[in-house]
Amino acid sequence: MNDRFLRACRREPVDRTPVWFMRQAGRYMAEYQALRKRHTLLELCRTPELAVEVTLQPIKALGFDAAILFSDLLIPLAPLGLPFDFQSGEGPVVEKPIRSRADVEALRRFEPREELGMVLEAIRLLRRELKVPLIGFAGAPFTLATYAIEGGSSKNLALTKGLMYGEPDTWHQLAGLLADVVSDYLRAQVEAGAQAVQLFDSWIGALDEADYREFVLPHVARIFEGLDGLDVPQIHFGTATGHLLGLQREAGGTVVGVDWRTPLDEGWERAGLDVAIQGNLDPTLLFAPRERLLARVDDVLRRAGGRPGHIFNLGHGILPGTPVENVKAVVDHVHEATAR
Amino acid sequence: MNDRFLRACRREPVDRTPVWFMRQAGRYMAEYQALRKRHTLLELCRTPELAVEVTLQPIKALGFDAAILFSDLLIPLAPLGLPFDFQSGEGPVVEKPIRSRADVEALRRFEPREELGMVLEAIRLLRRELKVPLIGFAGAPFTLATYAIEGGSSKNLALTKGLMYGEPDTWHQLAGLLADVVSDYLRAQVEAGAQAVQLFDSWIGALDEADYREFVLPHVARIFEGLDGLDVPQIHFGTATGHLLGLQREAGGTVVGVDWRTPLDEGWERAGLDVAIQGNLDPTLLFAPRERLLARVDDVLRRAGGRPGHIFNLGHGILPGTPVENVKAVVDHVHEATAR
Repeated sequence: MNDRFLRACRREPVDRTPVWFMRQAGRYMAEYQALRKRHTLLELCRTPELAVEVTLQPIKALGFDAAILFSDLLIPLAPLGLPFDFQSGEGPVVEKPIRSRADVEALRRFEPREELGMVLEAIRLLRRELKVPLIGFAGAPFTLATYAIEGGSSKNLALTKGLMYGEPDTWHQLAGLLADVVSDYLRAQVEAGAQAVQLFDSWIGALDEADYREFVLPHVARIFEGLDGLDVPQIHFGTATGHLLGLQREAGGTVVGVDWRTPLDEGWERAGLDVAIQGNLDPTLLFAPRERLLARVDDVLRRAGGRPGHIFNLGHGILPGTPVENVKAVVDHVHEATAR
Repeated sequence: MNDRFLRACRREPVDRTPVWFMRQAGRYMAEYQALRKRHTLLELCRTPELAVEVTLQPIKALGFDAAILFSDLLIPLAPLGLPFDFQSGEGPVVEKPIRSRADVEALRRFEPREELGMVLEAIRLLRRELKVPLIGFAGAPFTLATYAIEGGSSKNLALTKGLMYGEPDTWHQLAGLLADVVSDYLRAQVEAGAQAVQLFDSWIGALDEADYREFVLPHVARIFEGLDGLDVPQIHFGTATGHLLGLQREAGGTVVGVDWRTPLDEGWERAGLDVAIQGNLDPTLLFAPRERLLARVDDVLRRAGGRPGHIFNLGHGILPGTPVENVKAVVDHVHEATAR
């Protein structure tokens, strides 16, 4: 069992800096594309054997130190009462986005063991196969709410912020329900075998500190409180969060994820040197010539300074079209450069 | 002549803090929508009388302290050799995006008085009508290059960064040409009568400091050097630039624009207290109830601290659907709250 990922999350010494990439299972791999020709994205997420196969693809091919369950942030929205689908080239589309208090009141907390059993089954199957730790995950309330309210991806999040500002009670009811759902879901993933969890609050970078503190922090804190007593690392991730890292840390988590806009050493100081740090190569650097790519990997490692508690990752998900050989080169380079 | 905008740009004392909003002429106004029923966006930009009419609409209705020429960032791309159009609901589409060195070599520097005479004519006409200062503007090389390379709006800027990293010589040739074009264009706008200019580098927030320094800063610095000797305020604007404000200042400009993610006082310190500062209300707050909206306006003013050199603005352009009465309320409130 390769446990350097779990050791780094606990800020224990490691033989090599562990590496995994967000969206490491996905479109940049030919193996994945072959499966996608026969199945929709939701079929891959909702069929345990397929989710297992996709999750394992990059572990076998590329040597990552952790696996992340292949799934999608939006999966819990359907049993909550918000069915959605992926339209080709357009991303997710929520059938009936939330626009009112009544829409929020129509949602229901659910039992993940009943409604999302296929995800938990994939976790159980994966644990039999894997020789690296398995990370479970969920979207955080703000990020899930942006999809639920906007109906899909959005540039300005104007509807989301409009609801926050205009009907704060409705917002807090929605975010509180999402916090309960996410907490239940992450706990169920851990009970099924996930050895770490990552909370993706990918879009909070659009908020200033005051809004984060008022509309987001209490709900995220509730999620982490709901995980109390589970002895697994809890990664708290967002993008464009240079100004929010201290507040994210306050909200909770034992590992803070930082994107490439914030130099890793500065991000670690803002999040606190008493948590582990995950990041933070710009995913577009994987399109760069090898020399530039590895120089920037070395810069991340230099900023980590060999201090226990660094998990090497991208600053956001790997992009479609990324050359697989560059991914492999980074994984190998991190391992070689940090061998102790 | 209301000159409080120009005085604030020069960090001179003012009777009231000046206010203008990015995209203050546009879709949120019924007067604009009425015109758009009869004309395309490009017709409005390219017909001096129409550009004048649209520019004046918010000045007459809402009491802003400066007018900004109604135009579009992409206007210089067509004479450069990159024709484009706006497709409804999809934003700009560049007909033949740049993909190679040969594509860059096919572009040509042009004389704005010949190729963009209609813009300069609109400026001359506006100066006869306006009793507030007129701001000219252009997109900065990185931001223009994202449209030229991606072919339109883009979430990850993967093609842009791919060209930067993969063919740095081609990148610098393109960005250098864009810097010349922008410098010529801004100079021509000032010579036609623009009393201040704003350089929009809207998308640089996607870069880290190292990339900004290598790929952006030299070209932006060249633009500001090209404006040497023109005695007009030069506003340097970007979004999500909390980590770049010091470098932006180093690149040039006499006013630095800051978005809402960075508290105004922190942003001013990072940019340097010896420049003026412009910002920084989150545009989505204009959808909020009046009490919350004005409390946040007051917070911006409190952070400005009554120090000479603050121009009140949004942190990015005003959004379609913004209630006009809230815009008016903010303009009036800033004037009342800062009356000296």
